Amino acid sequence: MATFMDVHHGMTGITPEELEQAHQADQRLEREEGVHFKQAWADPASGTVWCLSEAPSADAVQRVHERAGHKADEIHSVPYSV
Amino acid sequence: MATFMDVHHGMTGITPEELEQAHQADQRLEREEGVHFKQAWADPASGTVWCLSEAPSADAVQRVHERAGHKADEIHSVPYSV
Repeated sequence: MATFMDVHHGMTGITPEELEQAHQADQRLEREEGVHFKQAWADPASGTVWCLSEAPSADAVQRVHERAGHKADEIHSVPYSV
Repeated sequence: MATFMDVHHGMTGITPEELEQAHQADQRLEREEGVHFKQAWADPASGTVWCLSEAPSADAVQRVHERAGHKADEIHSVPYSV
């Protein structure tokens, strides 16, 4: 397992309810791909959402997001954190 | 106080020690600006670092990073999180 930070652009105006719904959609699917979405943050002004996950691969993270209907624009492995 | 996600680019090859030193430099200064840096994640492959903070303003976050010698490239207010 590794830690990933993925980024979604183009989410301008996202509401707290939409963020919660998107996160719940990911959580319903994550177990099938061996992924765990830990946290997510949204900036509705720039339309950016970041999701922090533990997963076997970036592809597994993307599969969950694609199946949930919101493909990520970037998926970064983040081996270091403080 | 609000929550901010800031982004640093151009950090290709950053090591765990460099991330830790940068975070400690921020922490030594943060109180003077009323900022608290909570977590940071690094992707040495793309050279991206994300810092999550609680702060009175984006300007306060940037002042800490500038004084610590590593100005952020983006600072996003993230009013929503899950």
